[in-house]
Amino acid sequence: MGALEHIYRTSLALLTDLYQLTMAYGYWKLGRADEQAVFHLEFREPPFGSGYAIACGLGLAVEFLESFRFDTESLEYLRSLTGTNGSPLLEEAFLDYLGRLRFSCDVDAIEEGTAVFAHEPLIRVRGPLLQCQLLETPLLNLINFQTLVATKAARVCQAAQGDPVIEFGLRRAQGIDGGLAAARAAYVGGCAATSNVLAGRLFGIPVRGTHAHSWVMSFPDELESFEKYAQVMPHNSILLVDTYDTLAGVRRAARVGQRMKQRGHRLAGIRLDSGDLAYLSIEARRILDEAGLTDARILASGDLDEHVIESLKRQGAKIDMWGVGTKLATAYDQPALGGVYKLSAIKRRDGHWRHTIKLSEQAVKINTPGLLRLRRYFRDDHFLADMIYDELIGVPDQPVIVDPADPTRRRPIPSGARHQELLVPIFRAGRRVYNPPSLQQAQRRTHRQLEALHPTIKRFLNPHRYPAGLEKSLHDLKMQLILQARGMAEV
Amino acid sequence: MGALEHIYRTSLALLTDLYQLTMAYGYWKLGRADEQAVFHLEFREPPFGSGYAIACGLGLAVEFLESFRFDTESLEYLRSLTGTNGSPLLEEAFLDYLGRLRFSCDVDAIEEGTAVFAHEPLIRVRGPLLQCQLLETPLLNLINFQTLVATKAARVCQAAQGDPVIEFGLRRAQGIDGGLAAARAAYVGGCAATSNVLAGRLFGIPVRGTHAHSWVMSFPDELESFEKYAQVMPHNSILLVDTYDTLAGVRRAARVGQRMKQRGHRLAGIRLDSGDLAYLSIEARRILDEAGLTDARILASGDLDEHVIESLKRQGAKIDMWGVGTKLATAYDQPALGGVYKLSAIKRRDGHWRHTIKLSEQAVKINTPGLLRLRRYFRDDHFLADMIYDELIGVPDQPVIVDPADPTRRRPIPSGARHQELLVPIFRAGRRVYNPPSLQQAQRRTHRQLEALHPTIKRFLNPHRYPAGLEKSLHDLKMQLILQARGMAEV
Repeated sequence: MGALEHIYRTSLALLTDLYQLTMAYGYWKLGRADEQAVFHLEFREPPFGSGYAIACGLGLAVEFLESFRFDTESLEYLRSLTGTNGSPLLEEAFLDYLGRLRFSCDVDAIEEGTAVFAHEPLIRVRGPLLQCQLLETPLLNLINFQTLVATKAARVCQAAQGDPVIEFGLRRAQGIDGGLAAARAAYVGGCAATSNVLAGRLFGIPVRGTHAHSWVMSFPDELESFEKYAQVMPHNSILLVDTYDTLAGVRRAARVGQRMKQRGHRLAGIRLDSGDLAYLSIEARRILDEAGLTDARILASGDLDEHVIESLKRQGAKIDMWGVGTKLATAYDQPALGGVYKLSAIKRRDGHWRHTIKLSEQAVKINTPGLLRLRRYFRDDHFLADMIYDELIGVPDQPVIVDPADPTRRRPIPSGARHQELLVPIFRAGRRVYNPPSLQQAQRRTHRQLEALHPTIKRFLNPHRYPAGLEKSLHDLKMQLILQARGMAEV
Repeated sequence: MGALEHIYRTSLALLTDLYQLTMAYGYWKLGRADEQAVFHLEFREPPFGSGYAIACGLGLAVEFLESFRFDTESLEYLRSLTGTNGSPLLEEAFLDYLGRLRFSCDVDAIEEGTAVFAHEPLIRVRGPLLQCQLLETPLLNLINFQTLVATKAARVCQAAQGDPVIEFGLRRAQGIDGGLAAARAAYVGGCAATSNVLAGRLFGIPVRGTHAHSWVMSFPDELESFEKYAQVMPHNSILLVDTYDTLAGVRRAARVGQRMKQRGHRLAGIRLDSGDLAYLSIEARRILDEAGLTDARILASGDLDEHVIESLKRQGAKIDMWGVGTKLATAYDQPALGGVYKLSAIKRRDGHWRHTIKLSEQAVKINTPGLLRLRRYFRDDHFLADMIYDELIGVPDQPVIVDPADPTRRRPIPSGARHQELLVPIFRAGRRVYNPPSLQQAQRRTHRQLEALHPTIKRFLNPHRYPAGLEKSLHDLKMQLILQARGMAEV
């Protein structure tokens, strides 16, 4: 049983916008339900000004799709909906149809933990128009947030330079699943553990914790609170030292650490949760070392993000582990990834595909038409460039990539460059043909992918733009379709 | 069956930080599990620079507390956790204790839809120390996010000046429950409906929807797509007009509206989703009116928030309904409310309460000690001031309120001012003594509360600070305890 099924009692088929259902009804009513369509899920810009994003959420999407079904309760609810005139919004025969509906699409997707870039198709859904349409909202909900948090986590872990980062955000997360889902994605992005016990149980993520200020406050004094904690948790004792005065707290923790040592135990470390973490950690390290507790580690928490961690590292802070909460679990500086899911081709009755396009005042918002594929080229072990191409057009002998943000920037691919197709078959005719890797494996993929990215793409300030764009023949087709659509836009 | 129980298959007892469980183990091991304690949940500043917040989430918290139980699966998982030396983290007798544990606290809380201010106790939990502690994370998770989004929704609805606001955020929400919970809180805050069908089913919120660009793109041309939608949805037809060229789309929609009229139907309206909404809505209104479609309404969507809506209103935009997504469902400009849950008193063995305090470099972060109550004073139908007091001290004959942010600002309460206690009994000894109102009732409360707030407190820019503070005797006690704690902080 997958995590989603384990968490949610109810069918998630209604986890969608109402308009998906009214459109589905329309397609069904017009006899168009089974027309073949292709949709792609993409984002227009990596979050946080990052040079990359980490694809995440596919495992949840797979579970969602495998269990996609309108159960009796869902249909009962839909039956109760009415239009403006009070009559049923959806007719009974359509509800019967939904009740019998079984997912039958082809799905291709980029694996979790893969570094991805603007406009790349993270998921491609091909199948009956009605089904493809219904999946828009849930796929966006799952992939947007998972990719957002995995990317934030990758950045935080990058700043921590290999120190363990623990996700601490449940109390400020956006709802119950905001917390669970954030813990999952943070782990894929590189975090070592989470404080969220339910996430630990459901996703198999390591859980970690220390104690809170209330533990200290519940005792008559801080020293006693530390001694008691060391007594009951001799093998998991990280003492929170800032309830009253941080350095006084460190000295008391050191005293307790020395007593633990005499008893054959070990003070695992201390936690700093406020104040000037650079200064306090350096002083705390000195106090611990002078007490002979060189193996006691220092965990810092309190409003951390990649920028604060990078700054603390630069200042020589003596911090060994990082607890990152709100800023990670809510992706505080950009709490939503603007992923979209667009129709890009539909099969005409004559059996030929028609490319579809939506106009916008902003060129970057115009979708890419076609049956897209994504190819990554390598130079040695590094990523060289990503090419989005249309399988209806194919790949020419000498492919050229056009930058979607600036079509005058073009890059020919060196002939013979090693490459890999990034869209992997996930479902064929509704049957799963893919075994999602464990989250541990996804995390390792993230790690390897980031190693293969040039450092200039990973820097936080003004990262270099990784070459990812449309193959020129697809770019040309897109331009032609835009001009056509603009022409026909007039009444 | 409550919504949470309906949504979640699994016990939510593990929806907590690991340290709550290690502390609980510590209290149990030391024989302190049943010491009486009092914790309060409060926030330090309303979000978004707002002059107020709207309390929300109590209904979910009540459900959580009523079903609080460690089931076999939860205990099984806890049994598997190990400390740094590989031995079990929690001993078997403690797991037995958890399995038998039944919630037995007293809970008092402010009702959903109430306007609340910094430092006010939104929830007060009194009971066995171990239980109070375990509830910290889930209560914060539920109340922080619900209060955040209800406040955002109240502001958005205020900007919309009575026009219906529909919550459209599911696709960008933070996970599945990020979307469900946001729809719930947005409704309490004043939204008329949501696009989220599952939220509609689970919470009884009205659902609304139009159609997407893909509907238009799936047809050979826009006019045909509109005609077909009007044909299949004659009683729910709001046509999205910006797929190719917005005003051309409006003209086509108007043509379809006229034909619907001839058939005895009515074009419900159009939706604008991009471009200059002020200009486009004024032009669209003119086109619709000239076509005799004066009752067709204009719905706007696309990156809206309270500031954009206020600006559009000022520019005379002809918009009748507002679809607000990402900015509302993720509280984009401040995606977390920094609520905290602090121990403020513990009963000594001699039966007397000991007030507890945590120091901080920032005065605003020091918790308020005591067994707190909250009294709201009125002048006519308006709120005059809120007073936090300690039931151990009581209320003097001539109460004076001290501003927590600036203790030199003090306000005597006029004698005889009408008042109301805002903390309502919710649980007594673990038994629920409160029937949560419906979400419709909570929404009406929000509405009435905002009417009772002076307009200067509701304005977006530099709102007036509503007088809410500690009664002077409690303030004096707090100062004394801080000085004591600073004194004893030295080693």
